[in-house]
Amino acid sequence: MRLSNTLTQITGGGSDGWELFIKARKMIAEGRDVTELTIGEHDIKTDTRILEAMHGAALGGATGYAMVPGIDPLRTAVAERLTHRTGVRTALDNVLITAGGQAALFAAFRAALDAGDSALYIDPYYATYPGTIRSVGGVPVAVTAPAENGFQPDIDALDKAAATSGAKALLINSPNNPTGAVYTRDTLERLAQIAHKHDLIVISDEVYDTQVWEGAHLSIRALEGMAERTFVVGSMSKSHAMTGSRVGWLVGPAHAMGHVTNLLTNTNYGVAGFTQQAALFALGLGETFEEEIAAPFKRRRALAQAALKGQNALRLSPPSGAMYLMLDIRASGLTGDAFADRLLTERAIAVMPGESFGTAAAGHVRVAMTIPDAPFEAALKEMVAFGATLA
Amino acid sequence: MRLSNTLTQITGGGSDGWELFIKARKMIAEGRDVTELTIGEHDIKTDTRILEAMHGAALGGATGYAMVPGIDPLRTAVAERLTHRTGVRTALDNVLITAGGQAALFAAFRAALDAGDSALYIDPYYATYPGTIRSVGGVPVAVTAPAENGFQPDIDALDKAAATSGAKALLINSPNNPTGAVYTRDTLERLAQIAHKHDLIVISDEVYDTQVWEGAHLSIRALEGMAERTFVVGSMSKSHAMTGSRVGWLVGPAHAMGHVTNLLTNTNYGVAGFTQQAALFALGLGETFEEEIAAPFKRRRALAQAALKGQNALRLSPPSGAMYLMLDIRASGLTGDAFADRLLTERAIAVMPGESFGTAAAGHVRVAMTIPDAPFEAALKEMVAFGATLA
Repeated sequence: MRLSNTLTQITGGGSDGWELFIKARKMIAEGRDVTELTIGEHDIKTDTRILEAMHGAALGGATGYAMVPGIDPLRTAVAERLTHRTGVRTALDNVLITAGGQAALFAAFRAALDAGDSALYIDPYYATYPGTIRSVGGVPVAVTAPAENGFQPDIDALDKAAATSGAKALLINSPNNPTGAVYTRDTLERLAQIAHKHDLIVISDEVYDTQVWEGAHLSIRALEGMAERTFVVGSMSKSHAMTGSRVGWLVGPAHAMGHVTNLLTNTNYGVAGFTQQAALFALGLGETFEEEIAAPFKRRRALAQAALKGQNALRLSPPSGAMYLMLDIRASGLTGDAFADRLLTERAIAVMPGESFGTAAAGHVRVAMTIPDAPFEAALKEMVAFGATLA
Repeated sequence: MRLSNTLTQITGGGSDGWELFIKARKMIAEGRDVTELTIGEHDIKTDTRILEAMHGAALGGATGYAMVPGIDPLRTAVAERLTHRTGVRTALDNVLITAGGQAALFAAFRAALDAGDSALYIDPYYATYPGTIRSVGGVPVAVTAPAENGFQPDIDALDKAAATSGAKALLINSPNNPTGAVYTRDTLERLAQIAHKHDLIVISDEVYDTQVWEGAHLSIRALEGMAERTFVVGSMSKSHAMTGSRVGWLVGPAHAMGHVTNLLTNTNYGVAGFTQQAALFALGLGETFEEEIAAPFKRRRALAQAALKGQNALRLSPPSGAMYLMLDIRASGLTGDAFADRLLTERAIAVMPGESFGTAAAGHVRVAMTIPDAPFEAALKEMVAFGATLA
């Protein structure tokens, strides 16, 4: 079977940097007691009330084909949420319900790119970004967000890369995974200028929009003239601890959404009606619920600030958002890969090497704040002790 | 926003033939009592036991990210099902769980085609086929399955089209929607020869495999040398009345499935664990359950044979499989479009014009056997009476 080049080249050919993750899983399978700080997933399950709402909807008959763009009440609820949270008037016909944020991301790139078109993305980056671009035959072009710049993107480099590559799209992610950076208004305004200058479609992954610890979430779609050229990717995964339910949305100009609906018809043929009802119920729980879901990460961020205070081998710049810490371990003299490997081998703690998120996070490790407070604090102390052996 | 050509050309530009469907929906919205025989969806809901299994799994904690290729027990169950039903030894690593059969179809075309590559499909065809090919930048090339040939594909025409187009893939669907044809062993062997001769990847949509009323379902993957070049698309939708749950699978050579997993990572990031558990439970209900789900269509097919016996204006060649009747209405002197439009306007019965499934079903209408027996029989009688006015 001769597979398409598009398929076989999705992973690019470079290492995807997840060797450590796999090694940790193997150790666990062998019975080792490994503290896993690798995954962007809550340590709680989806709230039982949401599951009961889903079951009620299923028993009530929401088991047949749902409308491909999503059920109207959920599209409306998402539209109202974006209107409220971002200040951009958003209507039902700006919203399509997708099988998770990843499906929205994929749809956005299919909407923006023909095969051979380039798309810009920011390094460090979430694992699927370049692969998603390649999945539609696109060419991913990375632009760094240097650690020295607080992981805010290098706008001049972006300007040049846009000109050189002739890119059609720019993907941004704020609050950011893996860095925890929340883009400032200044950054976003400069990104918007670049988008106008080079006629880029902006794909703004805002799935961490409820996890902001400093400053406030600002959507680039809210800046002048940007609603017409921006797709926003959203999801119930992080904000409502519904990672496994696979329900999210794509928001964009109404004229584009009709075309994207055609794509959704041919990719998933819609999202389960009962899942959409569950999401609708969950959104109805309001901001208090979203704050409850976000609270543990805020708390653990404070624990980390205390535990890592004054550490040189593991330097923490507290994240402004999202559920991760990015530790600068360059003073240890190790690469992120080597640090993570030794931390796993010697202390049975699994963190992600910064190198697995691109070049700009080299010499860092990403620590997911996704285990309960007590073992999280214990792991931090262990890491500090480990760091002391390197100094 | 300048959208990609790939996106905007998904629908091809020709009419998609669903005007009648939309007109019927409008009449219903206006309060008219329309008998709808348009949709490929059971008149029953998903079995409560399956929904309880789903709920149990969700409450039990299956709410986090599931493994992208699918959960092992479900992959194994699907593998065993295919081994049993088709005689081809199938293992877990030949199976990927997808967000419905449509997602499997999309993945198969992405696996087979680069942008600009051609793919062959058989006309009459299910609505999404050409759009799915276009969604990956492919060029759909139709080959007819003439009514005169019992809607079995024209192999000589296929041979020529394969040579002319340089196609990389061939999509087939048996049992067939919309025609009800079940491909004979002879047809499948000749299709396999074409696939070998032109080095085609065969994408075999077998979602109606439990609905066979005459003969037996034979998978082209079971023919000699075909397992290495065939993707099979399957789904819980039709066999288990789980249309809205969006759970299906793609089966193919193990070496290909690793690459397809990379694609699934970037399109959906897996299928909800609780949905997969529900599917696993449903498969465990066994063949008796599948026969129960299929039984109404077999019964209604017999009702139709009796009701339409000797009719000239509406000639029924009883379907060998699937949940539809294809009626040849050419003796009425009307096109399928005109017949369906008048039947809706004059008798408030909605059927699909054959023209909405391509050129080879012109002069036919498709009747979905998806309403309860009594109103189904009443609709048939009404159609006969309508036909009599045309003779």
